[in-house]
Amino acid sequence: MTRGHVAHGEEERITFLEDAAVVVRDGLVDAVVPAAEAAGVPAVERLDARGQVAMPGLVNCHTHAPMVALRGLAEDLPTEEWFNDVVWPVESNLTEKDVELGARLACAEMIRGGVTCFADHYFAMDAVAAVVAECGIRAHLGQAYFSSQGEQGRQQSLEFALHHRGGAHGRITTALAPHAPYTVTDADLAATADLARAHGLPVHLHASENRDQADTSLARHGVTPIEVLERTGVLDADVLIAHGTGILERDLSVLARARGRTAVASAPRGYLKFAWPTTTPIRALREIGVPVGLATDGAASNNSLDVWESMALTSLIQKSTEGDPRWLTSRQALHHATLQSARAVGLGDRIGSIAPGRRADIVLVDLTGPHTQPVHDLAATLVHSARSSDVRTTIVDGRILMRDRELLTLDVPAVVRELGERMPALLDRSHGRRIQEYDT
Amino acid sequence: MTRGHVAHGEEERITFLEDAAVVVRDGLVDAVVPAAEAAGVPAVERLDARGQVAMPGLVNCHTHAPMVALRGLAEDLPTEEWFNDVVWPVESNLTEKDVELGARLACAEMIRGGVTCFADHYFAMDAVAAVVAECGIRAHLGQAYFSSQGEQGRQQSLEFALHHRGGAHGRITTALAPHAPYTVTDADLAATADLARAHGLPVHLHASENRDQADTSLARHGVTPIEVLERTGVLDADVLIAHGTGILERDLSVLARARGRTAVASAPRGYLKFAWPTTTPIRALREIGVPVGLATDGAASNNSLDVWESMALTSLIQKSTEGDPRWLTSRQALHHATLQSARAVGLGDRIGSIAPGRRADIVLVDLTGPHTQPVHDLAATLVHSARSSDVRTTIVDGRILMRDRELLTLDVPAVVRELGERMPALLDRSHGRRIQEYDT
Repeated sequence: MTRGHVAHGEEERITFLEDAAVVVRDGLVDAVVPAAEAAGVPAVERLDARGQVAMPGLVNCHTHAPMVALRGLAEDLPTEEWFNDVVWPVESNLTEKDVELGARLACAEMIRGGVTCFADHYFAMDAVAAVVAECGIRAHLGQAYFSSQGEQGRQQSLEFALHHRGGAHGRITTALAPHAPYTVTDADLAATADLARAHGLPVHLHASENRDQADTSLARHGVTPIEVLERTGVLDADVLIAHGTGILERDLSVLARARGRTAVASAPRGYLKFAWPTTTPIRALREIGVPVGLATDGAASNNSLDVWESMALTSLIQKSTEGDPRWLTSRQALHHATLQSARAVGLGDRIGSIAPGRRADIVLVDLTGPHTQPVHDLAATLVHSARSSDVRTTIVDGRILMRDRELLTLDVPAVVRELGERMPALLDRSHGRRIQEYDT
Repeated sequence: MTRGHVAHGEEERITFLEDAAVVVRDGLVDAVVPAAEAAGVPAVERLDARGQVAMPGLVNCHTHAPMVALRGLAEDLPTEEWFNDVVWPVESNLTEKDVELGARLACAEMIRGGVTCFADHYFAMDAVAAVVAECGIRAHLGQAYFSSQGEQGRQQSLEFALHHRGGAHGRITTALAPHAPYTVTDADLAATADLARAHGLPVHLHASENRDQADTSLARHGVTPIEVLERTGVLDADVLIAHGTGILERDLSVLARARGRTAVASAPRGYLKFAWPTTTPIRALREIGVPVGLATDGAASNNSLDVWESMALTSLIQKSTEGDPRWLTSRQALHHATLQSARAVGLGDRIGSIAPGRRADIVLVDLTGPHTQPVHDLAATLVHSARSSDVRTTIVDGRILMRDRELLTLDVPAVVRELGERMPALLDRSHGRRIQEYDT
């Protein structure tokens, strides 16, 4: 049970209750009541959250968690060099152990930053699933594949999704995870769409990541990457599209037809860092009813898994891009970070707000620091003044994973030490191999 | 004395020393030596900074510190409404006590965020100077004035600058502080330039804050705000120009002629939030040799005084604006945050690097958190992964102002409580007064 401010909401109407308590039972929110009333409720444990806000945990809607191992390795490079000269050569060295250690470090960072659920899209995902089970976080996992892997890649992605669906006491959900329309053939995308339908699985993939990809697709195939998703049947499944900064005007009617099944994950920091000319067109997507969740992408491009920063940047970059200071208010940013993100990962009815019947994925945010005082507008304080480091306590399914900044399920120094030992082998690029070629 | 990594640098060449120690004596850096060597140096106090980086303290080159009292009060508004409907009406209520409390809260926030020096431009600055003396931070202070105040405003600005110059054991430097060319007449700017010359004082003011101001100035007067500064003689003094996002091509030759005396302070967060169409043209200013320091502006627009965020945003927004991912690297960002910022506030020979003879303004940054591991590129880790909350210890003039996150010279709960009591009177807008009208 916690007391303090409580934030939850529906349809961009974020509600804050003062001096409230959240009653949690069997991993679910049982009730939200006035704090005075909660004093009489018998409880196994009570958390005093005075001076803090209880918020739905943040959702990282698109990341490659184990890539924290490459944080800061490929700096100040254009996208193509980033992939071809550093990231894809290094990833050809990846072992399951590297993925396991990277995932552990990533989960530590996310739990400390108030992230209670992440959508991961990577390789050796059995290792990631094991780390999720071990550390208590929630995750939406997909085993990535390229067509260059042959049929085996697609098959492994399916086996992973079927095997781990509902894992970690229901905290793991899964998706089929083709890499992107520029690395997966139309035939493989169509086969994936069939598998998605046959097995009731969603699809999580990159598409129209940037304007270059859209332009190249148009030049080579006469259709945009989004149109490729439609004609291959992928948009008939539940789809989570990563980035979409290259979504064009003509794509909007396509996406509108897929309304209710489609969502986009936006990770604005990397778009700035790569100097992409556009960002995710959130305003246009809102007009056609496509939810936009917040994300960090991998730390090799984003340098952190800080969804709090994504939330603030989304507000700032949207205002700037639209030339409208009234657009994407702090309440809208909170809505993207919570309910829209929950919908994006297919958990719109289970997480994303603090309400009876929802999973108890809750973070307690300290607002007593000088940088968050005074509070004239709680939404603005949360989005523009608070930082991920203000999260004191992180709870998933009613279990406390971090208490007063102390991680309870992960040993960071041990992970850092072990990961350090593996670095020389992981970073070796003398072999000249790549797992894939970037050529949009 | 501290041990750990040490970062200092000249001319964008940031050097990192591993396992080094900084010897501090009488408020100055005495030596930077290998840690082993320092073990034998007699010392009053030793700080163990293993796992941390010792960096020059950050400089906030343009803020209105007491405006933290208005943090989050005027959200999602265009510039004109922000000024005319909220900020300037509220500021007509300001008392010296409000300014004192705001300054105290601001200094707490800045010391916690690794800021060791700030350039302030506000009203009732005697109160700010007293807080600076009390809490141990360094500051470059100017009493702001509008021409609407008559000659008295300019006179008070001069008296403040002369009275406080060299105050707080030399930690306070001062400037004349006309508000901006659109609120101060040419005659008053010329008189200010004369005073600056006569008394050897620098000038700190807003100019060409945004493109609207530049366009309006051209339409009304046929000259840009920067050209106004030249023709009134202001550019013959040492000048710190806040923002300059409206600096035009034609202004560059003007500023080039003032090279060596002129600097610009950039606070990119607010430009995004107000949806201004441009940001400070850092690349063009670098080409003409004008240093650009980093800043936050006031918390009423920026929502924090987090210079660390300004550093990361400067890198990201510059890459995006210039369309070049190779531009404004992390090392360049660190150079702006330290040496260029020191130059911008007229302290280029005293602070901004950790080197013998410099004032011992040092922060210790913890890199053991999961979000800053592993470290492949220390500059990237500092700029893109570390956060202001990773600053563990803040030292000014050799005095520890924060130790292991504990503020030693300021009582935040007391300030917050007292400020809260004053809020109803401060926020009252029923009187319909403003301290000034925004009309560029």
